[in-house]
Amino acid sequence: MALRRVRLDIEYDGTDFAGWQTQPGLRTIQGELERALAVPLRRPVRIVGAGRTDAGVHALRQVAHADLPADCDLSRLFATVNALTPASIALLGLSRVSHDFHARRSATARAYRYRMACRAVAYGRAYIWSLRQRPSLVRMRECAEALPGVHDFASFCVARSAPKGTECRILTASWRSTEGEYRFHVSANRFVHGMVRRLVGAMVEVGLGRMTPADFRTLLTGARRRGTGPTAPACGLCLVEVMYEGAGEQT
Amino acid sequence: MALRRVRLDIEYDGTDFAGWQTQPGLRTIQGELERALAVPLRRPVRIVGAGRTDAGVHALRQVAHADLPADCDLSRLFATVNALTPASIALLGLSRVSHDFHARRSATARAYRYRMACRAVAYGRAYIWSLRQRPSLVRMRECAEALPGVHDFASFCVARSAPKGTECRILTASWRSTEGEYRFHVSANRFVHGMVRRLVGAMVEVGLGRMTPADFRTLLTGARRRGTGPTAPACGLCLVEVMYEGAGEQT
Repeated sequence: MALRRVRLDIEYDGTDFAGWQTQPGLRTIQGELERALAVPLRRPVRIVGAGRTDAGVHALRQVAHADLPADCDLSRLFATVNALTPASIALLGLSRVSHDFHARRSATARAYRYRMACRAVAYGRAYIWSLRQRPSLVRMRECAEALPGVHDFASFCVARSAPKGTECRILTASWRSTEGEYRFHVSANRFVHGMVRRLVGAMVEVGLGRMTPADFRTLLTGARRRGTGPTAPACGLCLVEVMYEGAGEQT
Repeated sequence: MALRRVRLDIEYDGTDFAGWQTQPGLRTIQGELERALAVPLRRPVRIVGAGRTDAGVHALRQVAHADLPADCDLSRLFATVNALTPASIALLGLSRVSHDFHARRSATARAYRYRMACRAVAYGRAYIWSLRQRPSLVRMRECAEALPGVHDFASFCVARSAPKGTECRILTASWRSTEGEYRFHVSANRFVHGMVRRLVGAMVEVGLGRMTPADFRTLLTGARRRGTGPTAPACGLCLVEVMYEGAGEQT
């Protein structure tokens, strides 16, 4: 059967999932999407995501690809998949792409956002870290300004081994104060496992005066150290964009 | 025992509540707050809210008042109440006010926001109406522009009787297109029961071409008519601010 490559754009609320990646016996976003796609297509479907978000992490626009029968009606499939997936997963788009498009390997950059509020939070509490202390925004910004460029993020990598190394090129990094909360926006060519949550945790330590901006900069030199501080909770983290050359090679 | 009047500022996620107002046998925001206050104070406490939001409606900043023992330590009480209320209620502030401050009667205006997205929504879906059609923003704005000023909202009132009448002075009303969603912002000296959700429902009807802007304006003349269209769901609605002369008379 002839297959055509298809790109999926997906939004999800990661609260009740064991992360993106399919794992036997666990509820994952990839798993739910593969299950929903298999129903109308009547065959097993494998999808490849751009980023493997952790348990509890959200996405405003995750990207994935799959090889589907060339004759399938994408607009019908779009509606069916949205009807079959749980409410916490929303398929935003389904489009044909060229065969050499690879959601992960073709991606040139990813952007994440971390939301934090220094108070009790009720509205939207599943998406914000509620911190009962107030770190200095000035000090956290001093850390963020040190981020752009190439650094070795070994200190910020949760995984024991990183086959592709721990060097990443940070493109942009900034803290914004908006609507009564602090938001950390960061984009990079790639991220190592747990990196954004550990970066946020360390910057908050600096903001609370438990670490200096110089300590933070030392952590960026690649020596595998302890002392990055607590990892910020998953709920505040959200994958907001995956970037491709051109417009994701839609055909 | 000497009592002092206290102002409470409250945020809540209304999803799992039968609305603001205490009702026997039902879980309400007022009821949960009164229950939490009674524990450290060891006496029944009655609070009065500025606006009685319906079941499922949220608040970023509801205001209430209560008369509490003059010697009670407000900063301790603040922490205790936040610890005793469910995560879906956050006490944002607790401050002494003069005895003639009344959360509802002293309020000069209220502001609501309604959020709507024309697609499947996963992230933040408890706070947004997910509409699978796309109403014309131009036509909805034409309706909103007719709102400022004094009108009789009898057609938009859910309650069978409105003891204080159905006339309201709309101060501001506008539709904004932001972050992939449509947001209706409205402020008025007062609102009648169900008014914002019925206004949104009617404007969406106009936006979808099922009603004309002229039909909408006719509904503002006070004749108690049918045909305002479906009531927009509660989840999209949020009380964002209650305004007072001065700064809420904090002492």
